[in-house]
Amino acid sequence: MELLKKTIEGVGQLNSEAMRLCRERIDGLVKPVGSLGRMEELAVQLAGITGELSPVLDKKLIVVMSADHGVYAEGVAPNPQAVTAIHTPNFARGVTGVNAFAKQAGSEVVVVDIGVAVDVDYPGVLKKKIKYGTDNMAKGPAMSREEAIKALEVGIEVTTDAIINRGVRLIGTGEMGIANTTASTAIIAVAGGIDPEAIVGVGAGLPVERLKHKAEVIKRAIELNKPDANDGIDILAKVGGLEIAGMAGTMLAAAALGVPVVVDGYISTAAAIIATRIQPMIKPFLIASHMTAENGGRKALDLLGLQPMFDMGLRLGEGTGAALAFNFIEAATYMVREMITFEEAGISL
Amino acid sequence: MELLKKTIEGVGQLNSEAMRLCRERIDGLVKPVGSLGRMEELAVQLAGITGELSPVLDKKLIVVMSADHGVYAEGVAPNPQAVTAIHTPNFARGVTGVNAFAKQAGSEVVVVDIGVAVDVDYPGVLKKKIKYGTDNMAKGPAMSREEAIKALEVGIEVTTDAIINRGVRLIGTGEMGIANTTASTAIIAVAGGIDPEAIVGVGAGLPVERLKHKAEVIKRAIELNKPDANDGIDILAKVGGLEIAGMAGTMLAAAALGVPVVVDGYISTAAAIIATRIQPMIKPFLIASHMTAENGGRKALDLLGLQPMFDMGLRLGEGTGAALAFNFIEAATYMVREMITFEEAGISL
Repeated sequence: MELLKKTIEGVGQLNSEAMRLCRERIDGLVKPVGSLGRMEELAVQLAGITGELSPVLDKKLIVVMSADHGVYAEGVAPNPQAVTAIHTPNFARGVTGVNAFAKQAGSEVVVVDIGVAVDVDYPGVLKKKIKYGTDNMAKGPAMSREEAIKALEVGIEVTTDAIINRGVRLIGTGEMGIANTTASTAIIAVAGGIDPEAIVGVGAGLPVERLKHKAEVIKRAIELNKPDANDGIDILAKVGGLEIAGMAGTMLAAAALGVPVVVDGYISTAAAIIATRIQPMIKPFLIASHMTAENGGRKALDLLGLQPMFDMGLRLGEGTGAALAFNFIEAATYMVREMITFEEAGISL
Repeated sequence: MELLKKTIEGVGQLNSEAMRLCRERIDGLVKPVGSLGRMEELAVQLAGITGELSPVLDKKLIVVMSADHGVYAEGVAPNPQAVTAIHTPNFARGVTGVNAFAKQAGSEVVVVDIGVAVDVDYPGVLKKKIKYGTDNMAKGPAMSREEAIKALEVGIEVTTDAIINRGVRLIGTGEMGIANTTASTAIIAVAGGIDPEAIVGVGAGLPVERLKHKAEVIKRAIELNKPDANDGIDILAKVGGLEIAGMAGTMLAAAALGVPVVVDGYISTAAAIIATRIQPMIKPFLIASHMTAENGGRKALDLLGLQPMFDMGLRLGEGTGAALAFNFIEAATYMVREMITFEEAGISL
């Protein structure tokens, strides 16, 4: 609780002087004013987050949180729950989707067992298990408030260590967890006051005829647990997930330390909603990567007021979209650093 | 003429066997089938273009064609024509927008003077001038058919040299040329049978109240020159531009040599329209990068039947969008190469 409290209190505002200087430089670069559109806005945001005109963001990391969900027992996911445990080591082996995209973007990937249903012993998988999967939210809270806080603090710890001790300057949030679109939909429904049926999606490939059942399970969980929409930790504990808590912790820690943090897809957006309910001041530190193909993605980003950079029809999660977005973010810093101004070019229009 | 003819005849079909094998591998990768959306389609297209399951595309090049436009005299552009000549060396110096994004994406940039209105003497600027800017299309054809063919062949030569002699495996098309949105709009209007007024845009920042005039100049040029919409070379010669010809030549050459070629923004899309009118078989070799903020961009991509990957509000041209898109393209090849299959992971669902 102390670590969470300290982190929440540590979140400041964007550096407005760095943003002003960055805007000024961008407006003077050899190009029509505004002609690099959102790349310019991105560069200004990065200056605000880091306090630097053109931060060097070559040390990048995707933090993949892995956990299981008790609500799996309700038949809301198409794949065996064991896939979480089987797939988790693959992130450490470097052979998953997010590893592929991270490698292209020059980013490292770290995977954290924050709540897989069985023990995962594999070199490189960080052991930070809070419990062996959440409890079934259709029958009671997914976890206790204390467990939710501990899981948030795992995200904070891992992320703070990466930034402070390993010099990471750009963070992406990823996850693995069978049934986690169910928990995410519950979070989005509660936070937005939305009927789960309107936003429920197929996740990893649930047959469409099972969608109504999935929505009913979520509705039941919300009615039973009555999470407080204004209390991020309450939503998280009652209808969330351990990996979602870890991701929210990552976002809080990155914001507190002035490091840009990239929201991936559906699960990551749910985590961002939790994080912003816990500390609304982190919002300007968040960067949305892409529009997920998962049904409720648009509503979730709208709730956050974030605009994605691209839509490539991704619905894998893991941090795949965040890794692809790293390139845009880094390119925005190159724009400020590598381009010259009209003045430097000796052009007066 | 011989070189153009040979190049047109050299364009083949995508390698369907490589595409089938690539699709098969992607469907077996450790992820829900189809969950990497358009990244999967991109990987399959790249296999078809190159004939390789997972081509290594680390040797990348943006070819920037630079030229002036006689139609500038009609008052269709907000900046002095001299900016083309002044800015062209900046691509060789490495200080422009496309240089910044290309550096991030690990790509080289080459700049070609294919028709700047004055001599450009600067180390690294390739001298391939066909003429000192086009003639004013509002008073007659922009160039002769012979000049258009020669300009197409400059693009073919430069691109073939880069691929054959320097091992380039991924090409992007860029440009510089004051008033070239005017020529591009004329091309798109003719090719699509569209009223210029419906697609005309502000380019580098023409005041909105001048848009009607710009459209009228384009209309006049089309009425006067009567380009044949089915003859790409005729459109190019009568209302096109030298840099647009060079870019079209680059596209033809890349397709003929089985190298993926990325369409940038508005001007590049106009060049792609020319190239596909000359040789429709190149279309599957083209990859659209982004949705430009220039007004007619959507119509132009629709004419080609291409879907952009992202919309970041860019309207600079130069190849900036193509350079950013290189990352997606390379990431698609990493996906095929770095991810393992369910079988390799020992998972059976």
